Amino acid sequence: MSKSFWHKYQSRVQHSGSLVCVGLDSQLDKLPECVSGAANPIWEFNRAIIDATKDYAAAFKPNLAFYLAYGVRGLTALYETVNYIPSDIPVILDCKVGDIGSTMSAYVHAFFRDLKVDAITLNPLMGSDVIKALLDCDDSYAFALALTSNPSAQDFFQNARMANEISNWLLHFPQERLGAVVGATQTADLQSMRAALPGRIFLIPGVGAQGGDLQSVLKYAVDTPPQPNILINSSRGIIFAGKGEDFAAKSAEAARELYLACREI
Amino acid sequence: MSKSFWHKYQSRVQHSGSLVCVGLDSQLDKLPECVSGAANPIWEFNRAIIDATKDYAAAFKPNLAFYLAYGVRGLTALYETVNYIPSDIPVILDCKVGDIGSTMSAYVHAFFRDLKVDAITLNPLMGSDVIKALLDCDDSYAFALALTSNPSAQDFFQNARMANEISNWLLHFPQERLGAVVGATQTADLQSMRAALPGRIFLIPGVGAQGGDLQSVLKYAVDTPPQPNILINSSRGIIFAGKGEDFAAKSAEAARELYLACREI
Repeated sequence: MSKSFWHKYQSRVQHSGSLVCVGLDSQLDKLPECVSGAANPIWEFNRAIIDATKDYAAAFKPNLAFYLAYGVRGLTALYETVNYIPSDIPVILDCKVGDIGSTMSAYVHAFFRDLKVDAITLNPLMGSDVIKALLDCDDSYAFALALTSNPSAQDFFQNARMANEISNWLLHFPQERLGAVVGATQTADLQSMRAALPGRIFLIPGVGAQGGDLQSVLKYAVDTPPQPNILINSSRGIIFAGKGEDFAAKSAEAARELYLACREI
Repeated sequence: MSKSFWHKYQSRVQHSGSLVCVGLDSQLDKLPECVSGAANPIWEFNRAIIDATKDYAAAFKPNLAFYLAYGVRGLTALYETVNYIPSDIPVILDCKVGDIGSTMSAYVHAFFRDLKVDAITLNPLMGSDVIKALLDCDDSYAFALALTSNPSAQDFFQNARMANEISNWLLHFPQERLGAVVGATQTADLQSMRAALPGRIFLIPGVGAQGGDLQSVLKYAVDTPPQPNILINSSRGIIFAGKGEDFAAKSAEAARELYLACREI
């Protein structure tokens, strides 16, 4: 019987001591030369990265865009990758879908039943209709975009108003099924997001390549002990830490460094 | 040389006299039995639908979710479908992506360079960073979600506030590159959206299966003659009009009916 993301996350954090989410943003033209001759370079690269970093990983997060960019071959690499990740490590598909009715049901089927990931990221703009198909699917879980870390997030998230609205809206749904994506570069807002959403898992991108401050993230976003209820994502900072033959060893070093830094909470 | 969506749309409307967008929501378990034995039933179905409806189509709009739902086989059907649509009929991929930086660049590469559609639908929640990769790609075009027709749209689009914000925001980008998705069931808001966005193409879902009122859409959303600048989408109402061996003929009838109704403006 498969376990839900919620349960997998709790037991993975307990057993690994890790809060690190390894983002598999495996962009074909950034892969090290030594995998470029493989039949499916993205899959070859991901397998090496997974083997090298899994001991430091609380979760893996492939990003749909980088697989769709290479069509059928890319999607094949995504299926191989998800299938290869050890079953006790939860897999989050970063896809930021947010649609309604039969379209959302089709995405839920695609990702939870066919690809078989444990969680997805979700765009809540269309409202609670977006959540229906998700709740209808046993053991599904999603992280809703609540506060993003990019410069133009202010266009619609201005003065944290949208973030507040989304937090209040999230309270209508069980914490076992819905978490929040909370950008690391908006550290001033982390504390209020955590106060508004106790017990909720936060997926925090923007640490590393996007310039977030790990110490303030750990200070303000972490939940009441013993459950930290956060995942610190790093993508390029881990998977592209090395460019040569030793790329996998370099990624292991980068993952271990972040793993240790997160343990200082 | 490829033509941009903007130009393809204008010349297709002029030559076909059609405002109908045929939505290819080709859900595997809804296909007629007579295609179920094909090597790739979705592609077999789509080919018949395209042949039957193309004379009445101003555009075709495959919906990514229904192809991803069947993994590699589904994505293969999507590639075959887009490749098969006559080059003078613009293709809009309904994917509602909205991401930033290298992720959005990867989606833009996936859809405009690899799959080779003419336009996509886009979720603007993350702000103008979402548009950057799109504007960097020649001849790309997107319809931003501005007002959707589902019941819970009010969660975040309340009192048309978000729709107003998105309309104002759209004015920062050229009308040749960005249009708007405007839900048909919110007819009271159609007039103000058109007043705010003259010259902008509106993609209007929610007619037919979702219960929109075609007459008020045509009355309030249409732009100054001679450019109507609208596309009336119908998906299930056309492609699933028949269930038997004559499914393609039934879809042609349904497309023709909507085509004629739209000509009454």
